[in-house]
Amino acid sequence: MGKSSQVRLDWSLVRRLIFGSPLSTEQIEHQRLPKILALPIFASDALSSTAYATQAILLNLLIAGPHALHLTLPVSLAVVVLLWIVVTSYSQTVHAYPQGGGTYIVSRDNLGVNFGLLAAAAILTGYVLTVTVSITAGVQQITSFFTELAPYQTWLALGATWFLTLANLRGAKESGMLFALPTYFFIFCMLGMIATGVFGSLFGYAPRPYPPVEQTVVHTGATGISFVLILRAFASGCAAMTGVEAVADGVQAFRPPESKNAAQTLFSMGAILGTIFLGISYLAQTNNVVYRGTGSEGDTSAESVISMVARSVFHDNDLLRAVVLFATAMVLVLAANTAYADFPRLSSILARHGYMPRQLANLGDRLVFSNGIILLSVFASVLILAFGASVDRFIPMYAVGVFLAFTLSQSGMVKRWITTKQKGWWWKALMNGMGATATAIVLLVLVITRGPEGAWIVLAVLPVLMWVFQQIYRHYQKVRSRLTLIGYEPQPLPPHTVLVLVPDVHRGVVPALEYAREISKDHRAVHIEINPADTQRLKERWEQWGGDMPLVIIESPYRSLIGPLVEYVRQVRQDHPRHLITVVLPEFVVTKWWERALHNNSAFLIKLALGNIRDVVITNVRYYLD
Amino acid sequence: MGKSSQVRLDWSLVRRLIFGSPLSTEQIEHQRLPKILALPIFASDALSSTAYATQAILLNLLIAGPHALHLTLPVSLAVVVLLWIVVTSYSQTVHAYPQGGGTYIVSRDNLGVNFGLLAAAAILTGYVLTVTVSITAGVQQITSFFTELAPYQTWLALGATWFLTLANLRGAKESGMLFALPTYFFIFCMLGMIATGVFGSLFGYAPRPYPPVEQTVVHTGATGISFVLILRAFASGCAAMTGVEAVADGVQAFRPPESKNAAQTLFSMGAILGTIFLGISYLAQTNNVVYRGTGSEGDTSAESVISMVARSVFHDNDLLRAVVLFATAMVLVLAANTAYADFPRLSSILARHGYMPRQLANLGDRLVFSNGIILLSVFASVLILAFGASVDRFIPMYAVGVFLAFTLSQSGMVKRWITTKQKGWWWKALMNGMGATATAIVLLVLVITRGPEGAWIVLAVLPVLMWVFQQIYRHYQKVRSRLTLIGYEPQPLPPHTVLVLVPDVHRGVVPALEYAREISKDHRAVHIEINPADTQRLKERWEQWGGDMPLVIIESPYRSLIGPLVEYVRQVRQDHPRHLITVVLPEFVVTKWWERALHNNSAFLIKLALGNIRDVVITNVRYYLD
Repeated sequence: MGKSSQVRLDWSLVRRLIFGSPLSTEQIEHQRLPKILALPIFASDALSSTAYATQAILLNLLIAGPHALHLTLPVSLAVVVLLWIVVTSYSQTVHAYPQGGGTYIVSRDNLGVNFGLLAAAAILTGYVLTVTVSITAGVQQITSFFTELAPYQTWLALGATWFLTLANLRGAKESGMLFALPTYFFIFCMLGMIATGVFGSLFGYAPRPYPPVEQTVVHTGATGISFVLILRAFASGCAAMTGVEAVADGVQAFRPPESKNAAQTLFSMGAILGTIFLGISYLAQTNNVVYRGTGSEGDTSAESVISMVARSVFHDNDLLRAVVLFATAMVLVLAANTAYADFPRLSSILARHGYMPRQLANLGDRLVFSNGIILLSVFASVLILAFGASVDRFIPMYAVGVFLAFTLSQSGMVKRWITTKQKGWWWKALMNGMGATATAIVLLVLVITRGPEGAWIVLAVLPVLMWVFQQIYRHYQKVRSRLTLIGYEPQPLPPHTVLVLVPDVHRGVVPALEYAREISKDHRAVHIEINPADTQRLKERWEQWGGDMPLVIIESPYRSLIGPLVEYVRQVRQDHPRHLITVVLPEFVVTKWWERALHNNSAFLIKLALGNIRDVVITNVRYYLD
Repeated sequence: MGKSSQVRLDWSLVRRLIFGSPLSTEQIEHQRLPKILALPIFASDALSSTAYATQAILLNLLIAGPHALHLTLPVSLAVVVLLWIVVTSYSQTVHAYPQGGGTYIVSRDNLGVNFGLLAAAAILTGYVLTVTVSITAGVQQITSFFTELAPYQTWLALGATWFLTLANLRGAKESGMLFALPTYFFIFCMLGMIATGVFGSLFGYAPRPYPPVEQTVVHTGATGISFVLILRAFASGCAAMTGVEAVADGVQAFRPPESKNAAQTLFSMGAILGTIFLGISYLAQTNNVVYRGTGSEGDTSAESVISMVARSVFHDNDLLRAVVLFATAMVLVLAANTAYADFPRLSSILARHGYMPRQLANLGDRLVFSNGIILLSVFASVLILAFGASVDRFIPMYAVGVFLAFTLSQSGMVKRWITTKQKGWWWKALMNGMGATATAIVLLVLVITRGPEGAWIVLAVLPVLMWVFQQIYRHYQKVRSRLTLIGYEPQPLPPHTVLVLVPDVHRGVVPALEYAREISKDHRAVHIEINPADTQRLKERWEQWGGDMPLVIIESPYRSLIGPLVEYVRQVRQDHPRHLITVVLPEFVVTKWWERALHNNSAFLIKLALGNIRDVVITNVRYYLD
């Protein structure tokens, strides 16, 4: 006989302190966002890409030698052209899908389930990498200023990840308030720095460029400026476009009219992003900035391009550089927040479609998809622990996932225009077709030139994820088919046999005996004879107190309680294959926790063992000692 | 709705490989030991004391300076006189208590419950220290030969402890076989070394003594030979007597006639022990052996006295010294085994008397008290980890516990003779009275002179243990009074209300609904409305499939399942204070373990929450998906 204690901890208070009071389902409408708050939440990812996009171009051009760095601005211009095509494509998506959906929905609707799942796998992977890239780049800004913090990059990155997790578990609206100020401050700082750098000379305040770099400084074996290297630099610079798909996924978070507000936000974002990206590339090129990356030898102390540009523009003024770096770091850490809005939302859609565990579709206390938030944090933390906090290592993986999703999404839109033949369909199909072709080429270049640097991991993960989605889907299909009531015929109730385990005859087993009498006429008491010396006394007491209930005594030569009991129940099951069988276990409840240690706690083990016998119901009847 | 998987691991096979096949209760008689096997098991502790008793005398005489070492033999002779008194006293105990019992039983019977508990606490503590002292002294023999192993003493000691645990969990008889050979080999080696050392000169093979030590070698501030220092050395040398009580505790393990066989074994043990102890003391003194101990500065590499005596007797022959040290180490590690026979046995007696958890009285698969064996190992391991593997630190604690037990036991016997006034009672009382007085003086000397070195820990633990015993006793008394059927009046069965949790209407809840109909006419279905959008569809399906069972729908504004359910059950409890209430939880069982992750596993949390409401029975009814 076991017993359970009554120790209770008021977790609800702890939860409330950390996550805030629960919100009722009716409050869901109030969580819709005005544009001024939606922009920072959905645009921070895209805008913050400027912190690593120019530096990805510089790093890849340097392979051809420092003279290739004069191509930074032309390559950046090409990226901005592509950016505008992609933004336009997504604005068409936002209007075509006012209920939200983004890449997964578009691919699924137009290209079929399998392409939809491929897109989902790609974009979920992309969200995880959004978190790792943004946070590691953010940490890079901090260590560009406080160089002595460089050895702690991994811990800083993990800390930032879990700070974001808590913020998001508290709910979307408060996150919007929390994140608006830093994002607008970042835009202000960047535009200010660019204006100072570009127009300052009109007022006699020209930047102080770095000394021109000698041809001899070579990153890896210099190969001259080949077309492939330019393509590679372009493809890497396309990291600037990561994050533009976020708005399309989150149309439902906007206030009505959702599509119009979302599209406006998307174009505003594209304009600001293009301006800042071009400005930084221009300043980096004209001021001879060279970025050598964090290297593969574990050197994580590379200074960021933003930091070097700020040195030139502000003439090594440390205060202004600190402000710029701080603003960049903040917006990068907040950029990771885009993924915290989108990953749980896409997971919940996939869960409702039956491709992911349905717990991901549960709204938590605070009307957010808590399980998706936690899942994202776990994946991101594992990546940071596995690869270290080096942004240069994550960028190729990130870009592969994002551009696969872009290609699928825009191909889906092309298919849609061709199928639906709406007004102006050929123009729209042309726009999306250009985008799909361009992003497909970028994807190809990425896989070929950057595959060995880690992009292959993403390519290996995608089919595994698709397989998992399909297994989950099959499981839920199977469950549904087994649970359907169609064709169900009510049966007459079967006979019911009740067994009560009687370790001893005392008041603690009385409620169990009464319960057995209550629920069936066919009841019997079962005693496992661990100590044969006590059996005679037990029989005598049963005569006196057992009433009309038959007592079965079972030998246990090896003094085991569970083995003979399981054996007997199996026997009863075999003798009465059609009966309902209930095993009643008396349990007495002690008042203090330490008193548990003074009794054989066998009830749990008995339940576990009987749980393996089919169609046997196990019931605990408690007796309170106080 | 939760579900349970059906993963089973065949632990019985693993258990069998490690511990051997289970033994049936009927085989218990065959575990009785012949004297030839009982001697090594019960005497190894006492005999092995010779490994550290002489060295304890040397260490304490050295405080007065090296010239005091000529008192080694006289002090040892005094110890042997006391040993003989104690052995005689225990032989009287063995005859007076043929059912076994030793110190606890004797003290309890004659001095009352509280002295009995004090004795029990002292002797249980003593058993734990038997393990630590014997094993650390055994390791000291090994490191006296392999000096390079000295840094690993703690790990060697822990390894030996857990080796003994496994051996004992396999059962007493096999332990006897396992331990007989080393013990007899030890006796042979010791008697051989002593004979060579004492009589070798008759054949021209005299030992090579160490050079006489200069007066200037002083351990701590030399104080001259005072009476107190001699007493202190005598008290420390009484460590030779630790273990002689073991036989009295284990009379039941002997073959009939138990008392006679046990007493014979006790006297044989005393004779062998006295001979070896005196022999070693004689050889140590005549060969100028000086023992400086392991010191307090963490130096654990002190060479043992046995090793130094062997050097003298065998003229630095390393092979013969190795054989002697190996035999000593073996018998010391096996000596710890005495405690593995006695601690679980005394614990089981205390458990049957209600002073320790009753699990300690359970016979395991192999007819040994498995829980007591494990408890002893845990305590010993903690001590070794806390104090390090230094035998010199454990000896004062050990001796205090043992001599308190001796004093109580012999005082109890004195009381017994005075009370019963059997034939020759005054002579017996005089014998025991002498023993009690002498051991009480030794105890007092130990506490005064060695208290600060650790003996105080034992004195602090004893009242705590006594308090714990009493709390446990009170708990079992309380349980007994609550469980008695005396005065119990059978009540008419109360009305029975059954609630079935219905998360959805599908085949998975059908068995639960049928079960509810089966066990009571008063049944109702309860649905917690987490997603109000689904409620209408649920109601329609209930119309179709729910039959005559009423459906209660409960709002859950915060989307919690458990809160509103608990609230409702409390409400029903309040409305029907005298009813029996059963909550039936449908649970579906998936076929593969990973499928569990795809469902809300709320059944466990619901059970936990409802477990806090009194007099509510919670029942799982399972539906199998395959």
